[in-house]
Amino acid sequence: MINKELRIGVIGVGAIGTEHIKRINHKIKGARVVGIYDVLEEEKKQLADEMGIMFYGSGEDLISSDDVDAILITSIDETHADYVLKALAQEKYVFCEKPLAIDSQSCAKIVEAEVKCGRRLVQVGFMRRYDKGYMELKKLIESKSYGEVLMLHCAHRNPESGLHYTTPMSIIQTAVHEIDVLHWLLQDDYVSVESILPKKQTKMTHTNLHDPQILVLETKNGVVIQLEIFVNCQFGYDIKCEVVCENGELGLVDPHYTYVKHNFSNQTPISPDWQTRFKEAYDTEFQLWVNGVLNHKLEGPSSWDGYVASVITTAGTESTNKGEKIKVMLQEKPSIY
Amino acid sequence: MINKELRIGVIGVGAIGTEHIKRINHKIKGARVVGIYDVLEEEKKQLADEMGIMFYGSGEDLISSDDVDAILITSIDETHADYVLKALAQEKYVFCEKPLAIDSQSCAKIVEAEVKCGRRLVQVGFMRRYDKGYMELKKLIESKSYGEVLMLHCAHRNPESGLHYTTPMSIIQTAVHEIDVLHWLLQDDYVSVESILPKKQTKMTHTNLHDPQILVLETKNGVVIQLEIFVNCQFGYDIKCEVVCENGELGLVDPHYTYVKHNFSNQTPISPDWQTRFKEAYDTEFQLWVNGVLNHKLEGPSSWDGYVASVITTAGTESTNKGEKIKVMLQEKPSIY
Amino acid sequence: MINKELRIGVIGVGAIGTEHIKRINHKIKGARVVGIYDVLEEEKKQLADEMGIMFYGSGEDLISSDDVDAILITSIDETHADYVLKALAQEKYVFCEKPLAIDSQSCAKIVEAEVKCGRRLVQVGFMRRYDKGYMELKKLIESKSYGEVLMLHCAHRNPESGLHYTTPMSIIQTAVHEIDVLHWLLQDDYVSVESILPKKQTKMTHTNLHDPQILVLETKNGVVIQLEIFVNCQFGYDIKCEVVCENGELGLVDPHYTYVKHNFSNQTPISPDWQTRFKEAYDTEFQLWVNGVLNHKLEGPSSWDGYVASVITTAGTESTNKGEKIKVMLQEKPSIY
Amino acid sequence: MINKELRIGVIGVGAIGTEHIKRINHKIKGARVVGIYDVLEEEKKQLADEMGIMFYGSGEDLISSDDVDAILITSIDETHADYVLKALAQEKYVFCEKPLAIDSQSCAKIVEAEVKCGRRLVQVGFMRRYDKGYMELKKLIESKSYGEVLMLHCAHRNPESGLHYTTPMSIIQTAVHEIDVLHWLLQDDYVSVESILPKKQTKMTHTNLHDPQILVLETKNGVVIQLEIFVNCQFGYDIKCEVVCENGELGLVDPHYTYVKHNFSNQTPISPDWQTRFKEAYDTEFQLWVNGVLNHKLEGPSSWDGYVASVITTAGTESTNKGEKIKVMLQEKPSIY
Repeated sequence: MINKELRIGVIGVGAIGTEHIKRINHKIKGARVVGIYDVLEEEKKQLADEMGIMFYGSGEDLISSDDVDAILITSIDETHADYVLKALAQEKYVFCEKPLAIDSQSCAKIVEAEVKCGRRLVQVGFMRRYDKGYMELKKLIESKSYGEVLMLHCAHRNPESGLHYTTPMSIIQTAVHEIDVLHWLLQDDYVSVESILPKKQTKMTHTNLHDPQILVLETKNGVVIQLEIFVNCQFGYDIKCEVVCENGELGLVDPHYTYVKHNFSNQTPISPDWQTRFKEAYDTEFQLWVNGVLNHKLEGPSSWDGYVASVITTAGTESTNKGEKIKVMLQEKPSIY
Repeated sequence: MINKELRIGVIGVGAIGTEHIKRINHKIKGARVVGIYDVLEEEKKQLADEMGIMFYGSGEDLISSDDVDAILITSIDETHADYVLKALAQEKYVFCEKPLAIDSQSCAKIVEAEVKCGRRLVQVGFMRRYDKGYMELKKLIESKSYGEVLMLHCAHRNPESGLHYTTPMSIIQTAVHEIDVLHWLLQDDYVSVESILPKKQTKMTHTNLHDPQILVLETKNGVVIQLEIFVNCQFGYDIKCEVVCENGELGLVDPHYTYVKHNFSNQTPISPDWQTRFKEAYDTEFQLWVNGVLNHKLEGPSSWDGYVASVITTAGTESTNKGEKIKVMLQEKPSIY
Repeated sequence: MINKELRIGVIGVGAIGTEHIKRINHKIKGARVVGIYDVLEEEKKQLADEMGIMFYGSGEDLISSDDVDAILITSIDETHADYVLKALAQEKYVFCEKPLAIDSQSCAKIVEAEVKCGRRLVQVGFMRRYDKGYMELKKLIESKSYGEVLMLHCAHRNPESGLHYTTPMSIIQTAVHEIDVLHWLLQDDYVSVESILPKKQTKMTHTNLHDPQILVLETKNGVVIQLEIFVNCQFGYDIKCEVVCENGELGLVDPHYTYVKHNFSNQTPISPDWQTRFKEAYDTEFQLWVNGVLNHKLEGPSSWDGYVASVITTAGTESTNKGEKIKVMLQEKPSIY
Repeated sequence: MINKELRIGVIGVGAIGTEHIKRINHKIKGARVVGIYDVLEEEKKQLADEMGIMFYGSGEDLISSDDVDAILITSIDETHADYVLKALAQEKYVFCEKPLAIDSQSCAKIVEAEVKCGRRLVQVGFMRRYDKGYMELKKLIESKSYGEVLMLHCAHRNPESGLHYTTPMSIIQTAVHEIDVLHWLLQDDYVSVESILPKKQTKMTHTNLHDPQILVLETKNGVVIQLEIFVNCQFGYDIKCEVVCENGELGLVDPHYTYVKHNFSNQTPISPDWQTRFKEAYDTEFQLWVNGVLNHKLEGPSSWDGYVASVITTAGTESTNKGEKIKVMLQEKPSIY
């Protein structure tokens, strides 16, 4: 039985913040949101009142409050690093939505601060690791029944992106999920990234977006990953991960629960969006984070993983710009990770 | 936010009771098991101590305790009806694992007692209604995009049953799940049941079991349901529900998350057992029951549904014995259902 | 190398006759249509002229012509038996489209005549046995890897039938394909047939058709077959054959060659009609028949199979009319079959 | 009706030659093998005797014989170009198994000689274009229902290759099939090829083979093709072709006719080898070639396609050796193609 209840403070209550508050308060056992902070003070103060919880005068106040055990950061990307560092200064647990920071240097600074704390306090919001499909793939790979992994073909497809979306965002905001989950899946490190630009989608009117884009990633073990990113594919939220091993292919299936035979066609649904596709993964992510914090044992994506993601996405963008393969150099991994 | 916590007392702490306690204490928001009773007093008292909860001297004590808001009955089938009636006498909410009672008369008595309370207090543990697949099927049917439902082909297959399993148990314990979920799915009532016995499985050594068995059910609206029950099919826990409509076929898919290509075969896993297949349905069932109790609005399977299931399974068994189709007569449905 | 060319005469040149002529002349190695006869003399004589082949004055003339090695009968059902008997009188090979005759007595007479010839000369046009899927199923069953067959669930669905279609025709013209192929697949005999009428399709305006219909067939070995016949299912030509064995389920797949992901749906095509679904089976059927005739070794569906089909479909129709299960009695099977 | 019979002479009667002779003599309407030549004179003369056909003293004799209407070349690769040129010198139709020649210069010479004839006489044995799947994909693409093609992911996987197989052979003998079929599918030309070498399969003991290998091909229209070649994948003959369009994904399915549920796994077979996977494509290829020759209208893969395949595979091998992307330059396409 979970007796103690983790008191969570949330910084940034936009779309995703609101969804996470609902999740914590209605689904996650052993946790409760007790306070919030948001720059839209008027509006969100009212929300806090409605929920009967505290509205703090600043993120700093929330972080240092004795009534708050752990921090959830869902504010805008530019503010993440600063809040995480402040939480670390208080030695408080902090869950930070991706990205950990907007550049690798800031990520490295967080890693350094956490290493000084001597133990993991930070988790980054890469929820794919909690998806049943990826978890099953990991087990299948680790069973060694199919030999070594040789290459992967992956796709990350959204039906549509906002018109503000740009070519670098396809890597930094979209491909970042694969970039995190794949090095975890393979227990391997990236050594190079190359961006390839195929024929461009013309159904949309984005001015600064080349869509789709292909990333070719290579790992220390020699595995080659072909990753298609297509954020306006129109037809569904479609995630592929096909792992070619020495004597078998393993792959993700978009889970579905029904089929329909209609109009001379046998049909199964494709997920409409990431919220639907990874709903359970989000639930699992938060439940395990709460359990981890209560037991002082974090096992989810760490600051280090946030740092790795930042280095690789930066290199990916550099490759798009320069039109050549970029070699990747990571710092040495501290022992707490 | 769920503020109030429902205090649950559990009667009967065997395999399924223990699983439900874990579920409530580790997953279900807004509820907590506060006390238990079991006939194995020594052993289960110790368990209660370990969990730091109350062990009651009897089911009656537990039911009437002021510290218990709602009752969960997972004791042996023969005791269900009595405990449910006692809970109703206290006007307490009660969740009773199927069957509601071991005969239709006892079910009818419970219905009568609940009607006297003037509102629904009882929920029966038919969890299929909470399965994503069945819920999607219901929406698809109700969309009317495929016309009226005409006939169904269903299968309920377990890899193996205990050697104590008998031909009537195939209906009363196994087919009962389809019997409940299908009249809910179709919003229709059964008018007849016929049992057909195909060639018998010889891989097992059950002495009192004819396995598989087929039930043909007809409804008021003329829908014909062919239901295969095969409790020793060896190859997996395999549930089929194929709904033939006027211009389409709708069906359940055993959800899976990965595929494997290996050994000249493209493979997706079949669920190993009902615990795995319907794990999420159980979680949803309990969460919605807890929400329903806290909001005084039960919407899950009722005493009436428990009564219907009992009448139909009894008729099914009669059909097996007599070798002929049995017409079904139900009481009039009270207005609270 | 096939050196000799079988000279075929065709009686009845309607839709199916014309298709078979094309098939023989453009695809089947070792055979050639050399003459035709049809009651529409004017019209079909012209066709014969265009093809540079003989138009015979009567079916009898064609059958007894020295220029004709083998007969193909695709005239109307009522004329089949008479032509087959005349071919047998000449001891000529004859391929007769199903049904062999319009009643079981006439079929029995043909069997008797053929037995007098001392060897097989007749083949009946049940092409399902030549479908790759059914052939694979037969091998899988005969491998015994899955134990004994216990029961089957089959469906025969057409998108639409002509308005002249009647309830008996659903059995005699449609279900007859399953009735033939399943006793071949199982190497077993039918002992009873029962017709069940589910809720009726209302999308069509047939006045003498109850659609869909279910047949329950039992075999000597105790296998129970549930066969759905639905000739106006609207959504495709959809054939199911699911064979439940002691430790596995085997089934037909509607073969398809592509998939499409579009509009939030993963789609594979359903065959539009029987011509498309069984095109290859027809080709194989005729090639093997021609080979069989040239080698004097017929292995396809025989007069006996035509007789069996007739007995069972008659019993099926009787069951629909009487609303009860009908026991089936077959003659003893002559040794030439 | 096909009246005239094409008399075919075959040069080179090894494994594939023998298979094609069987195919022509037992399946292909309107054609017959009348003579052969092979360097193993003793052995193959006997075969000719058994078949009751002519054994020619040389390929040249066969080509210039008045009894031979068309030539089929299935001799070793090095001899192809010379025989094709000799057939062209006689203005005879010639079907040449791939490759058309062992280098691009020889292919270009054949193109030149054919252009001098003023019409197409040569067909090259790229049978994928006759596969139902690829043909359906082409129709789907050309329907424009899914917008423009943007990128493709393809895989060519064999269960095992001989130990003589080398890294260049993976391109020249294996990838060549995709190289031909994809430019036909897209009606587009290649502009560059790049070879990428992922982690190497260690289950096999080939000394001169890096397996798998990835080719990245770009076309004039900007389409990017990622093609995996894996000739010792162990698990089956597995061909993928996934076409990503502006608002849909289209793909090949390995056709299968049955499924099996067994041992907690839902299974469909993967083709064991190319003979099985493309059996029908070979039949269609030869039937349409024979029809084309008889009607003096060849539409299959031409000398030009043989030339293109040679240029691209050469460039692919150059890329493997140099480790860089190779730009492709083609001659101008003559108007007869």
